[in-house]
Amino acid sequence: MKELKEKILKEGVAIGTQIVKVDHFLNHRLDIRFLDKIGAEFRRRFEGETVDKILTVEASGIAVACMTAAHFDFVPVVFAKKAMPNTMTEGFYEAEARSFTKGTVSKFRVSDRFISEGDRILIIDDFMAHGEASMALVNIVRQAGGTVVGIGAVIEKGFQGGSDKLRQAGCHVESLAIIDRIDDGKIMFR
Amino acid sequence: MKELKEKILKEGVAIGTQIVKVDHFLNHRLDIRFLDKIGAEFRRRFEGETVDKILTVEASGIAVACMTAAHFDFVPVVFAKKAMPNTMTEGFYEAEARSFTKGTVSKFRVSDRFISEGDRILIIDDFMAHGEASMALVNIVRQAGGTVVGIGAVIEKGFQGGSDKLRQAGCHVESLAIIDRIDDGKIMFR
Repeated sequence: MKELKEKILKEGVAIGTQIVKVDHFLNHRLDIRFLDKIGAEFRRRFEGETVDKILTVEASGIAVACMTAAHFDFVPVVFAKKAMPNTMTEGFYEAEARSFTKGTVSKFRVSDRFISEGDRILIIDDFMAHGEASMALVNIVRQAGGTVVGIGAVIEKGFQGGSDKLRQAGCHVESLAIIDRIDDGKIMFR
Repeated sequence: MKELKEKILKEGVAIGTQIVKVDHFLNHRLDIRFLDKIGAEFRRRFEGETVDKILTVEASGIAVACMTAAHFDFVPVVFAKKAMPNTMTEGFYEAEARSFTKGTVSKFRVSDRFISEGDRILIIDDFMAHGEASMALVNIVRQAGGTVVGIGAVIEKGFQGGSDKLRQAGCHVESLAIIDRIDDGKIMFR
Protein backbone atom coordinates (compact mmCIF):
# COMPACT_ATOMS: atom_id res chain seq x y z
CA MET A 1 0.00 0.00 0.00
CA LYS A 2 1.85 2.99 -1.39
CA GLU A 3 0.28 5.64 0.84
CA LEU A 4 1.19 3.60 3.93
CA LYS A 5 4.82 3.26 2.91
CA GLU A 6 5.01 7.01 2.30
CA LYS A 7 3.47 7.63 5.72
CA ILE A 8 5.97 5.30 7.43
CA LEU A 9 8.86 7.09 5.72
CA LYS A 10 7.43 10.51 6.61
CA GLU A 11 6.23 9.91 10.19
CA GLY A 12 7.97 6.73 11.35
CA VAL A 13 11.16 6.69 13.39
CA ALA A 14 13.68 3.89 12.91
CA ILE A 15 15.45 2.83 16.09
CA GLY A 16 18.50 0.59 15.71
CA THR A 17 17.99 -2.29 13.28
CA GLN A 18 14.82 -3.84 14.79
CA ILE A 19 12.30 -1.17 15.75
CA VAL A 20 10.11 1.23 13.78
CA LYS A 21 8.13 3.62 15.90
CA VAL A 22 4.87 4.75 14.29
CA ASP A 23 3.13 6.21 17.29
CA HIS A 24 2.11 9.25 15.25
CA PHE A 25 -0.62 7.33 13.44
CA LEU A 26 -0.85 3.75 14.73
CA ASN A 27 0.31 3.23 18.31
CA HIS A 28 -0.44 6.26 20.46
CA ARG A 29 -2.03 8.91 18.28
CA LEU A 30 -4.46 7.15 15.95
CA ASP A 31 -4.97 8.69 12.53
CA ILE A 32 -8.60 7.62 12.20
CA ARG A 33 -9.04 8.87 8.64
CA PHE A 34 -5.99 6.88 7.59
CA LEU A 35 -6.99 3.77 9.57
CA ASP A 36 -10.29 3.92 7.68
CA LYS A 37 -8.29 3.62 4.44
CA ILE A 38 -6.31 0.74 5.96
CA GLY A 39 -9.63 -0.98 6.70
CA ALA A 40 -10.77 -0.51 3.09
CA GLU A 41 -7.48 -2.00 1.88
CA PHE A 42 -7.88 -5.09 4.09
CA ARG A 43 -11.38 -5.48 2.67
CA ARG A 44 -9.88 -5.45 -0.83
CA ARG A 45 -7.14 -7.93 0.11
CA PHE A 46 -9.64 -10.41 1.54
CA GLU A 47 -12.33 -9.78 -1.11
CA GLY A 48 -14.81 -12.61 -1.47
CA GLU A 49 -14.09 -14.11 1.97
CA THR A 50 -16.91 -14.55 4.45
CA VAL A 51 -15.81 -13.06 7.77
CA ASP A 52 -17.93 -13.54 10.90
CA LYS A 53 -15.59 -11.85 13.37
CA ILE A 54 -12.30 -10.01 13.56
CA LEU A 55 -9.83 -11.11 16.23
CA THR A 56 -6.97 -8.97 17.55
CA VAL A 57 -4.93 -8.37 20.72
CA GLU A 58 -5.13 -5.50 23.18
CA ALA A 59 -4.17 -2.69 23.16
CA SER A 60 -2.54 -1.62 19.91
CA GLY A 61 -4.55 -3.95 17.65
CA ILE A 62 -7.94 -2.64 18.75
CA ALA A 63 -8.07 0.58 16.71
CA VAL A 64 -7.12 -0.98 13.37
CA ALA A 65 -9.43 -3.96 14.01
CA CYS A 66 -12.38 -1.63 14.70
CA MET A 67 -11.74 0.56 11.68
CA THR A 68 -11.41 -2.60 9.54
CA ALA A 69 -14.62 -4.14 10.91
CA ALA A 70 -16.57 -1.16 9.56
CA HIS A 71 -15.52 -2.29 6.05
CA PHE A 72 -16.66 -5.85 6.71
CA ASP A 73 -20.28 -4.90 7.26
CA PHE A 74 -19.61 -3.97 10.90
CA VAL A 75 -18.80 -7.51 12.09
CA PRO A 76 -17.91 -7.80 15.79
CA VAL A 77 -14.31 -7.51 16.97
CA VAL A 78 -12.96 -9.71 19.76
CA PHE A 79 -9.68 -8.76 21.38
CA ALA A 80 -7.50 -11.19 23.30
CA LYS A 81 -6.57 -10.00 26.77
CA LYS A 82 -3.00 -10.19 27.93
CA ALA A 83 -3.52 -10.60 31.67
CA MET A 84 -6.17 -12.26 33.75
CA PRO A 85 -8.76 -9.59 34.46
CA ASN A 86 -10.74 -10.02 37.66
CA THR A 87 -13.91 -10.13 35.57
CA MET A 88 -12.80 -13.09 33.39
CA THR A 89 -14.10 -15.77 35.67
CA GLU A 90 -15.45 -18.41 33.30
CA GLY A 91 -13.88 -20.56 30.61
CA PHE A 92 -11.37 -19.14 28.16
CA TYR A 93 -8.99 -20.22 25.43
CA GLU A 94 -5.36 -19.46 26.08
CA ALA A 95 -2.13 -19.36 24.07
CA GLU A 96 1.34 -18.04 24.73
CA ALA A 97 3.20 -15.48 22.63
CA ARG A 98 6.82 -14.55 23.03
CA SER A 99 7.85 -10.96 22.31
CA PHE A 100 11.43 -10.96 21.07
CA THR A 101 11.57 -7.15 21.23
CA LYS A 102 10.52 -6.99 24.86
CA GLY A 103 12.01 -10.33 25.93
CA THR A 104 8.74 -11.39 27.56
CA VAL A 105 6.12 -14.12 27.16
CA SER A 106 2.47 -13.08 27.28
CA LYS A 107 -0.56 -15.25 27.79
CA PHE A 108 -3.39 -14.30 25.45
CA ARG A 109 -6.86 -15.21 26.63
CA VAL A 110 -10.24 -15.12 24.90
CA SER A 111 -13.48 -16.04 26.63
CA ASP A 112 -14.95 -19.25 25.21
CA ARG A 113 -18.26 -17.39 24.79
CA PHE A 114 -16.84 -15.18 22.04
CA ILE A 115 -15.41 -17.65 19.52
CA SER A 116 -17.54 -20.57 18.43
CA GLU A 117 -17.16 -23.70 16.37
CA GLY A 118 -17.52 -22.85 12.70
CA ASP A 119 -16.70 -19.15 13.11
CA ARG A 120 -14.81 -17.68 10.15
CA ILE A 121 -12.27 -15.34 11.65
CA LEU A 122 -10.01 -12.66 10.23
CA ILE A 123 -7.02 -11.88 12.44
CA ILE A 124 -5.89 -8.24 12.29
CA ASP A 125 -2.87 -6.72 14.01
CA ASP A 126 -0.82 -3.55 13.80
CA PHE A 127 2.62 -5.16 13.56
CA MET A 128 3.93 -8.53 12.53
CA ALA A 129 7.45 -9.38 13.70
CA HIS A 130 8.26 -13.04 14.38
CA GLY A 131 4.58 -13.90 14.01
CA GLU A 132 4.25 -15.07 17.61
CA ALA A 133 1.20 -12.94 18.43
CA SER A 134 -0.69 -13.97 15.27
CA MET A 135 0.27 -17.62 15.81
CA ALA A 136 -1.17 -17.47 19.34
CA LEU A 137 -4.42 -16.07 17.90
CA VAL A 138 -4.50 -18.83 15.24
CA ASN A 139 -4.01 -21.35 18.04
CA ILE A 140 -6.95 -19.87 19.97
CA VAL A 141 -9.25 -19.88 16.91
CA ARG A 142 -8.39 -23.53 16.21
CA GLN A 143 -8.92 -24.54 19.85
CA ALA A 144 -12.44 -23.11 19.49
CA GLY A 145 -13.07 -25.05 16.27
CA GLY A 146 -13.11 -21.90 14.14
CA THR A 147 -11.45 -21.22 10.80
CA VAL A 148 -8.80 -18.56 10.21
CA VAL A 149 -9.90 -16.83 7.00
CA GLY A 150 -6.73 -14.78 6.92
CA ILE A 151 -4.24 -12.67 8.80
CA GLY A 152 -3.81 -8.98 8.05
CA ALA A 153 -0.91 -6.94 9.42
CA VAL A 154 -0.50 -3.23 8.83
CA ILE A 155 3.31 -3.34 9.00
CA GLU A 156 5.40 -6.49 8.69
CA LYS A 157 9.05 -6.62 9.66
CA GLY A 158 9.83 -9.02 6.82
CA PHE A 159 13.32 -9.81 8.09
CA GLN A 160 11.86 -11.47 11.20
CA GLY A 161 10.13 -14.28 9.29
CA GLY A 162 6.66 -14.09 10.81
CA SER A 163 4.60 -14.39 7.63
CA ASP A 164 6.56 -17.42 6.34
CA LYS A 165 5.87 -19.23 9.60
CA LEU A 166 2.15 -18.39 9.39
CA ARG A 167 1.91 -19.45 5.74
CA GLN A 168 3.49 -22.78 6.71
CA ALA A 169 0.68 -23.09 9.24
CA GLY A 170 -1.76 -22.79 6.33
CA CYS A 171 -2.77 -19.15 6.69
CA HIS A 172 -3.43 -16.50 4.06
CA VAL A 173 -1.28 -13.57 5.18
CA GLU A 174 -1.54 -10.01 3.86
CA SER A 175 0.81 -7.28 5.08
CA LEU A 176 0.19 -3.76 3.82
CA ALA A 177 3.83 -2.68 4.10
CA ILE A 178 6.77 -5.08 4.40
CA ILE A 179 9.99 -3.69 5.81
CA ASP A 180 13.03 -5.60 4.63
CA ARG A 181 15.72 -3.77 6.54
CA ILE A 182 16.19 -1.02 9.12
CA ASP A 183 19.64 0.42 8.96
CA ASP A 184 21.19 3.57 10.33
CA GLY A 185 17.83 5.31 10.73
CA LYS A 186 16.72 4.25 7.26
CA ILE A 187 13.73 2.05 6.46
CA MET A 188 13.87 -0.13 3.34
CA PHE A 189 10.76 -1.80 1.99
CA ARG A 190 10.57 -5.09 0.13
CA MET B 1 -29.98 6.19 25.25
CA LYS B 2 -32.83 3.70 25.33
CA GLU B 3 -31.23 1.07 23.10
CA LEU B 4 -28.11 1.08 25.30
CA LYS B 5 -30.10 0.57 28.50
CA GLU B 6 -31.98 -2.33 26.89
CA LYS B 7 -28.67 -3.83 25.80
CA ILE B 8 -27.18 -3.51 29.29
CA LEU B 9 -30.24 -5.23 30.78
CA LYS B 10 -30.15 -7.99 28.15
CA GLU B 11 -26.41 -8.65 27.90
CA GLY B 12 -24.87 -7.13 31.03
CA VAL B 13 -24.12 -9.09 34.17
CA ALA B 14 -24.42 -7.42 37.58
CA ILE B 15 -21.82 -8.56 40.11
CA GLY B 16 -22.40 -7.58 43.75
CA THR B 17 -23.41 -3.95 44.20
CA GLN B 18 -20.51 -2.25 42.34
CA ILE B 19 -19.75 -4.03 39.06
CA VAL B 20 -21.58 -4.39 35.76
CA LYS B 21 -19.87 -6.65 33.28
CA VAL B 22 -20.60 -5.74 29.66
CA ASP B 23 -17.87 -7.71 27.95
CA HIS B 24 -20.36 -8.96 25.37
CA PHE B 25 -20.42 -5.63 23.55
CA LEU B 26 -17.99 -3.16 25.15
CA ASN B 27 -15.05 -4.72 26.96
CA HIS B 28 -13.92 -7.93 25.28
CA ARG B 29 -16.23 -8.62 22.34
CA LEU B 30 -16.88 -5.29 20.62
CA ASP B 31 -20.26 -4.86 18.96
CA ILE B 32 -18.99 -2.60 16.19
CA ARG B 33 -22.41 -1.90 14.67
CA PHE B 34 -23.67 -0.82 18.09
CA LEU B 35 -20.54 1.21 18.90
CA ASP B 36 -21.16 3.06 15.64
CA LYS B 37 -24.59 4.07 17.02
CA ILE B 38 -22.91 5.10 20.29
CA GLY B 39 -20.58 7.31 18.26
CA ALA B 40 -23.53 8.92 16.47
CA GLU B 41 -25.20 9.59 19.84
CA PHE B 42 -22.06 11.29 21.21
CA ARG B 43 -22.02 13.44 18.09
CA ARG B 44 -25.61 14.45 18.83
CA ARG B 45 -24.84 15.17 22.51
CA PHE B 46 -21.91 17.42 21.61
CA GLU B 47 -23.55 19.01 18.56
CA GLY B 48 -22.12 22.37 17.59
CA GLU B 49 -18.82 21.83 19.42
CA THR B 50 -15.56 22.05 17.52
CA VAL B 51 -13.51 18.96 18.34
CA ASP B 52 -9.89 18.68 17.20
CA LYS B 53 -9.04 15.38 18.89
CA ILE B 54 -10.59 12.66 20.99
CA LEU B 55 -8.67 11.52 24.09
CA THR B 56 -9.19 8.19 25.86
CA VAL B 57 -7.27 5.57 27.88
CA GLU B 58 -5.99 2.19 26.79
CA ALA B 59 -7.31 -0.43 26.40
CA SER B 60 -11.05 -0.46 26.82
CA GLY B 61 -11.61 3.15 25.76
CA ILE B 62 -9.96 2.76 22.37
CA ALA B 63 -12.80 1.05 20.50
CA VAL B 64 -15.53 3.50 21.50
CA ALA B 65 -13.20 6.46 20.91
CA CYS B 66 -12.41 5.24 17.36
CA MET B 67 -16.03 4.56 16.47
CA THR B 68 -16.94 8.01 17.84
CA ALA B 69 -14.16 9.76 15.92
CA ALA B 70 -15.72 8.56 12.66
CA HIS B 71 -18.77 10.70 13.54
CA PHE B 72 -16.61 13.74 14.24
CA ASP B 73 -15.26 13.93 10.71
CA PHE B 74 -12.58 11.30 11.44
CA VAL B 75 -10.60 13.43 13.92
CA PRO B 76 -7.53 11.74 15.41
CA VAL B 77 -7.77 9.74 18.64
CA VAL B 78 -5.01 9.86 21.25
CA PHE B 79 -4.99 7.23 23.95
CA ALA B 80 -3.18 7.64 27.27
CA LYS B 81 -0.84 4.80 28.09
CA LYS B 82 -0.93 3.20 31.51
CA ALA B 83 2.67 2.04 31.81
CA MET B 84 5.95 3.40 30.53
CA PRO B 85 6.48 1.76 27.16
CA ASN B 86 10.10 1.35 26.09
CA THR B 87 9.35 3.48 23.05
CA MET B 88 8.09 6.52 25.00
CA THR B 89 11.44 8.15 25.41
CA GLU B 90 10.68 11.85 25.04
CA GLY B 91 8.54 14.27 27.00
CA PHE B 92 5.07 13.38 28.16
CA TYR B 93 2.25 14.68 30.31
CA GLU B 94 1.38 12.52 33.29
CA ALA B 95 -1.49 12.22 35.77
CA GLU B 96 -2.50 9.65 38.36
CA ALA B 97 -5.83 7.85 38.50
CA ARG B 98 -6.96 5.65 41.35
CA SER B 99 -9.14 2.64 40.54
CA PHE B 100 -11.42 1.97 43.49
CA THR B 101 -12.63 -1.29 41.93
CA LYS B 102 -9.13 -2.69 41.51
CA GLY B 103 -7.56 -0.90 44.48
CA THR B 104 -4.68 0.36 42.33
CA VAL B 105 -3.25 3.69 41.19
CA SER B 106 -2.31 4.02 37.51
CA LYS B 107 -0.14 6.64 35.90
CA PHE B 108 -1.59 7.87 32.61
CA ARG B 109 0.90 9.26 30.15
CA VAL B 110 0.45 11.11 26.86
CA SER B 111 3.35 12.20 24.69
CA ASP B 112 3.68 15.99 24.60
CA ARG B 113 3.76 15.76 20.78
CA PHE B 114 0.12 14.70 20.63
CA ILE B 115 -1.72 17.38 22.58
CA SER B 116 -1.00 21.00 21.83
CA GLU B 117 -1.89 24.37 23.26
CA GLY B 118 -5.28 25.43 21.99
CA ASP B 119 -6.44 21.91 21.12
CA ARG B 120 -10.17 21.39 21.65
CA ILE B 121 -10.46 17.91 23.11
CA LEU B 122 -13.37 15.55 23.67
CA ILE B 123 -12.67 12.90 26.31
CA ILE B 124 -14.40 9.57 25.66
CA ASP B 125 -14.41 6.51 27.91
CA ASP B 126 -16.35 3.28 28.27
CA PHE B 127 -17.14 3.56 31.99
CA MET B 128 -17.32 6.35 34.49
CA ALA B 129 -17.16 5.35 38.14
CA HIS B 130 -15.57 7.80 40.61
CA GLY B 131 -14.40 9.91 37.67
CA GLU B 132 -10.73 9.39 38.48
CA ALA B 133 -9.74 8.31 34.97
CA SER B 134 -11.55 11.21 33.26
CA MET B 135 -10.15 13.65 35.83
CA ALA B 136 -6.62 12.46 35.04
CA LEU B 137 -7.29 13.06 31.33
CA VAL B 138 -8.68 16.55 32.06
CA ASN B 139 -5.51 17.22 34.07
CA ILE B 140 -3.35 16.13 31.10
CA VAL B 141 -5.29 18.30 28.61
CA ARG B 142 -4.94 21.33 30.89
CA GLN B 143 -1.21 20.71 31.43
CA ALA B 144 -0.88 20.89 27.64
CA GLY B 145 -2.85 24.14 27.44
CA GLY B 146 -5.78 22.48 25.67
CA THR B 147 -9.50 22.87 26.31
CA VAL B 148 -11.79 20.04 27.38
CA VAL B 149 -14.84 20.40 25.13
CA GLY B 150 -16.66 17.65 26.98
CA ILE B 151 -16.53 14.22 28.54
CA GLY B 152 -18.59 11.36 27.15
CA ALA B 153 -19.02 8.09 29.02
CA VAL B 154 -20.94 5.12 27.64
CA ILE B 155 -21.99 3.85 31.06
CA GLU B 156 -21.89 5.87 34.27
CA LYS B 157 -22.19 4.31 37.69
CA GLY B 158 -24.14 7.30 39.00
CA PHE B 159 -23.88 6.18 42.61
CA GLN B 160 -20.10 6.67 42.58
CA GLY B 161 -20.26 10.43 42.00
CA GLY B 162 -17.85 10.80 39.09
CA SER B 163 -19.87 13.15 36.91
CA ASP B 164 -20.63 15.56 39.80
CA LYS B 165 -16.92 15.85 40.52
CA LEU B 166 -16.16 16.52 36.83
CA ARG B 167 -18.94 19.10 36.52
CA GLN B 168 -17.48 20.88 39.56
CA ALA B 169 -14.22 20.97 37.60
CA GLY B 170 -16.08 22.85 34.86
CA CYS B 171 -16.67 20.02 32.40
CA HIS B 172 -19.67 19.25 30.22
CA VAL B 173 -20.39 15.58 30.99
CA GLU B 174 -22.66 13.31 28.95
CA SER B 175 -23.29 9.70 30.00
CA LEU B 176 -25.41 7.57 27.69
CA ALA B 177 -26.70 5.30 30.46
CA ILE B 178 -26.60 6.16 34.17
CA ILE B 179 -26.89 3.28 36.61
CA ASP B 180 -28.29 4.34 39.97
CA ARG B 181 -28.10 1.05 41.80
CA ILE B 182 -26.91 -2.52 41.39
CA ASP B 183 -28.67 -4.83 43.75
CA ASP B 184 -29.04 -8.57 43.95
CA GLY B 185 -28.16 -9.06 40.27
CA LYS B 186 -30.51 -6.25 39.22
CA ILE B 187 -29.48 -3.05 37.44
CA MET B 188 -31.54 0.08 38.06
CA PHE B 189 -31.14 3.16 35.84
CA ARG B 190 -31.62 6.78 36.82
